[in-house]
Amino acid sequence: MSRSPDYSLYLVTDDALAGGRSIEWIVAEAVAGGVTCVQLREKHAESRAYYERARALRERLRPLGIPLIINDRLDIALAAGADGVHLGQGDLPCVEARHIAGPNFLIGISVSTTAEAQAAARDGADYLGISPIFDTPTKTDTPPATGIDGLRAIRAAVSLPLVAIGGIKAENAAAVVRAGADGIAVVSAIMAVADPRAAARALADVVARARQQV
Amino acid sequence: MSRSPDYSLYLVTDDALAGGRSIEWIVAEAVAGGVTCVQLREKHAESRAYYERARALRERLRPLGIPLIINDRLDIALAAGADGVHLGQGDLPCVEARHIAGPNFLIGISVSTTAEAQAAARDGADYLGISPIFDTPTKTDTPPATGIDGLRAIRAAVSLPLVAIGGIKAENAAAVVRAGADGIAVVSAIMAVADPRAAARALADVVARARQQV
Repeated sequence: MSRSPDYSLYLVTDDALAGGRSIEWIVAEAVAGGVTCVQLREKHAESRAYYERARALRERLRPLGIPLIINDRLDIALAAGADGVHLGQGDLPCVEARHIAGPNFLIGISVSTTAEAQAAARDGADYLGISPIFDTPTKTDTPPATGIDGLRAIRAAVSLPLVAIGGIKAENAAAVVRAGADGIAVVSAIMAVADPRAAARALADVVARARQQV
Repeated sequence: MSRSPDYSLYLVTDDALAGGRSIEWIVAEAVAGGVTCVQLREKHAESRAYYERARALRERLRPLGIPLIINDRLDIALAAGADGVHLGQGDLPCVEARHIAGPNFLIGISVSTTAEAQAAARDGADYLGISPIFDTPTKTDTPPATGIDGLRAIRAAVSLPLVAIGGIKAENAAAVVRAGADGIAVVSAIMAVADPRAAARALADVVARARQQV
């Protein structure tokens, strides 16, 4: 895995939004539609089940060159041979995670302010999740939305890749890319729709066209 | 930390049983009374809070030579500089944990059958938690109680240190030691009592006397 993955269209899984469909099927469809990076997020699974799902996704994604990132659980990310871990402000400190995982392992950090972004950059993060960029019903334990202006301020303050997440859909994704995001991350816009492949393709198109305008 | 800690009286924490008292205070009192090993178990804490509590306990226990073991979360155990991790059958596989943590790190595995005990021994466990030895109200997601006969069978099958847990109190601890346990682990018998130091002292006395009878 290169140290600079393509974060253009970053899918975060959510079992509760899958409507009984398998996460693996949705991920496969989404990747076929243009998703470039996948974060497995399990908030209620036992550790063994989380690990086994991570391994299954890794087997599916590795031949495709799509990085797999595990939410919160560095131990599961390492055990499953994932490419990285994504840490919120309430998860393990970035410095400790880097110390355990070594240099060749992706660490993403959720930030909502310029100060948090600068701290994560100092602490060795590989990329930042700007979260939430807009208000969203998917997560309720989040700080106030950063907004397009907040994203621009973070873009001016740090040079790391930025992935915006929170309430992004085809209608507002272009503005996020034009404001300096290297990628958009989505949950419900792919996990909760009837045709994840078509949804991913539409979002990937928006990102590609917005890039030409930057 | 030696690879062969004293497991005689092994305390497993439980925030819900502490009755609003601090875990750190109860642990300190319990160690003063004779607890020889501490497992921090947090089932609902966010990762950062779990990590910070682990670090605080490590600072308190290390000067006393008391090993600190973290339940389930290998990443938190490593980040906090704990001495080991304790894994249930629904947690990360022992082999993967050993691969990540290296040889000089304690790994305990919960088992309830001889087959599980033999598998854990093959997979590189340092000690086994026989769980539950008796029925207990503390945990409800456990297999049927192993009982004294089950403990004897496991004792005959593996040479690893065995720590029995589940429903152990001063009245039944001696039988557990006489059946071959190297130590007894308790939750409510120390966490839920008014005087954790006195409770630990009483349990330590029972273990010491039962050892003379083995």
